[in-house]
Amino acid sequence: MGKLARGVAVIGAGMSKFGAFPDKTTRELFVEAFTEAVNSVDKGIETKEIEALFLGNFSNDIFEGQVHTGPLMADMVGVTPGPAMRIEDACASSGVAFRLGVLAVASGAHDVVCVGGVEKMTNLETSRVTDVLASAADATYEFPAGATFPGLYAEIANAHMKKYGTTVEQLRMVGIKNHENGALNPKAQFQSTIRDIMKSRIERARAKGLPVPSWKDEMDFLSDPMANPIVAWPLRLFDCSPITDGASAVILAAEEVARRFTDTPIHVIGTGQGSDSLALHDREEFTSLRAARIAAREAYRMAGLEPRDIQIAEVHDCFTIAEIVATEDLGFFKPGEGGRAVEEGLTRRNGEKPINTSGGLKAKGHPVGASGAAQVVEIWHQLRGEAGARQVPGVEVGLTHNVGGSGASCVVHIFRR
Amino acid sequence: MGKLARGVAVIGAGMSKFGAFPDKTTRELFVEAFTEAVNSVDKGIETKEIEALFLGNFSNDIFEGQVHTGPLMADMVGVTPGPAMRIEDACASSGVAFRLGVLAVASGAHDVVCVGGVEKMTNLETSRVTDVLASAADATYEFPAGATFPGLYAEIANAHMKKYGTTVEQLRMVGIKNHENGALNPKAQFQSTIRDIMKSRIERARAKGLPVPSWKDEMDFLSDPMANPIVAWPLRLFDCSPITDGASAVILAAEEVARRFTDTPIHVIGTGQGSDSLALHDREEFTSLRAARIAAREAYRMAGLEPRDIQIAEVHDCFTIAEIVATEDLGFFKPGEGGRAVEEGLTRRNGEKPINTSGGLKAKGHPVGASGAAQVVEIWHQLRGEAGARQVPGVEVGLTHNVGGSGASCVVHIFRR
Repeated sequence: MGKLARGVAVIGAGMSKFGAFPDKTTRELFVEAFTEAVNSVDKGIETKEIEALFLGNFSNDIFEGQVHTGPLMADMVGVTPGPAMRIEDACASSGVAFRLGVLAVASGAHDVVCVGGVEKMTNLETSRVTDVLASAADATYEFPAGATFPGLYAEIANAHMKKYGTTVEQLRMVGIKNHENGALNPKAQFQSTIRDIMKSRIERARAKGLPVPSWKDEMDFLSDPMANPIVAWPLRLFDCSPITDGASAVILAAEEVARRFTDTPIHVIGTGQGSDSLALHDREEFTSLRAARIAAREAYRMAGLEPRDIQIAEVHDCFTIAEIVATEDLGFFKPGEGGRAVEEGLTRRNGEKPINTSGGLKAKGHPVGASGAAQVVEIWHQLRGEAGARQVPGVEVGLTHNVGGSGASCVVHIFRR
Repeated sequence: MGKLARGVAVIGAGMSKFGAFPDKTTRELFVEAFTEAVNSVDKGIETKEIEALFLGNFSNDIFEGQVHTGPLMADMVGVTPGPAMRIEDACASSGVAFRLGVLAVASGAHDVVCVGGVEKMTNLETSRVTDVLASAADATYEFPAGATFPGLYAEIANAHMKKYGTTVEQLRMVGIKNHENGALNPKAQFQSTIRDIMKSRIERARAKGLPVPSWKDEMDFLSDPMANPIVAWPLRLFDCSPITDGASAVILAAEEVARRFTDTPIHVIGTGQGSDSLALHDREEFTSLRAARIAAREAYRMAGLEPRDIQIAEVHDCFTIAEIVATEDLGFFKPGEGGRAVEEGLTRRNGEKPINTSGGLKAKGHPVGASGAAQVVEIWHQLRGEAGARQVPGVEVGLTHNVGGSGASCVVHIFRR
């Protein structure tokens, strides 16, 4: 097991604007992403050349009352009558859809396929969204006990802080960094740095004649419980990814046909996936995700690479602590050193291991079923040198890391220009 | 495209009892199916040898409030920490999961995987189940207009009757046949012929001192609007598959390792999948499903076979008309001749083309996400000569045909002993 029968490459990628779009349906969001992906194919592609659609979606069942979204989206973009299906692995849905698209092409069944993701979450009010998301945790034991994802990740954060001395400031720095990146991403839900947000709050207070806050800097702002309220200690509002509407799409081709479409394919050189118990209380440890370690090990093995070979990565920062744990699980930093790495700036765009240059789930937004494929969109842009103001110079090897639930699913992919 | 890099075989198969099980969770149902599948492997298999789980499920989101069922079920049976995911294509969910499992093994990523399906529908009352199912039709146009699946399939039935002269008696004969088969299947939800049901109603009336019905035979019984009420003309109650709880599981292996597990693997020699618009009103015709024709064409091409080569088939009889259309779409009978074929007994166990020897969705039951893989379970038993009282002698080539929605998804597989 573990060696693909033939190579697979990304030949196109696109995403919708991420944000809150009360006037758009999932169909419209997906058409937006798909159209950009098709238009990104250097030598052009006709829709009829795309043989199948692998669609990541978490729970359109509840968010929009529409199931069977695979063929629906295929019909909207013209992949019909080709195979179309929805893949669900909570927030890892389109990362897993990407893996299945890769395997389908590698198997010989298809030469060219589309992998997409879509989620429209703002139809429901926040407390209801939190409930729906919580159904990706263990609905028999965790949810009835009152656990929702902020609480579960808070447990992970507390365990990490206790075991390794990770600090709340280090958590805040993940958010500050990712907002700095998101500010440079025109598709991001939040195109503003934490400093921008702080300044606009001060200006607003002044304009309204209210008492003007005296925040010294971002960290001071993020420590103010009025500005950044506690959600589940130690996680505050700015430690949590937002509720988002959005879609993503990438086009995959067998290596043997990829050059028909582009002279700059991005090769998928490693894929790995792992699983774990849904419930946190069934795990041996809280400070590392076994599913992520399994997924990473398999992807590295297939790629013949080690963590130090990865030049850029998009990791699953649904909460700030999740990014720190991810960078440890992926072997970028030793267990317990992820927090310090952020503090030292190693994960910034100009650091030795740039993480979440897109803004990550924190600032780019987290339309759960679309996030995994959207990570691939960022790596595609970066490895092709087309990431605009947030481009990291000269990167040729990138990685994506997409988690479902509190770590019951994880899928890792490695790409080379 | 279209040639698999390596061969794949079924080496084990099992299913839970189908029926209404208020005291069982999806976890318990799936463990039941998985355990039977593992125990069916002739030379034995250890759970740790099963590398991944592809789980078909329609909407556990709503039925049980639990999403992320892939890793949950993997954890229940011991496939953790291997990859696990849920696939959704409405009622074709586990048929599509089966295809993705086949492609994953063919790709070289895995040698041995489990494909399963599970659905627990009886948690909700019937009208609510009908609503949830209707979300697999077009929720923007069809559902708000009042359409549910009995109504959509009634439109198909009316069109077929008008165009080809198919009769209501022919529809009823599909149900009579499938109940005859289900009566011989210990796993079926309804283990009784229509005649058995008719007789028990007569006895019950007599025992209660009520007026005793004077039904002459099954057809007379099925024509009585008190015994068999109209759901959506021309479909009556006994034209509709039931609401069911159940699970199914099959184990797939690469041909190169299959003999380690059994001397009688069932080879997957063809796979095909197609899609179509979700909404019936967007289709060019109602009397045939384009997705089914596309799926069948691809599966036949890959297998190098023609419809006449198929000796036995499980087809998607969610409504009696669906079986008639299926046998035409698969090329077993010419368009418009499916009804007459039933009338002439060609699709009975001793006919030239035995269809739904398991009892089909009609009598075996239809736990939607489990039905596709359960079709494979029946073909596995039949091709191995282990189908007990309902065994069709000497069959070596079989087919499964699994439909999602009113035909927006269809997946076809061909098997050889």
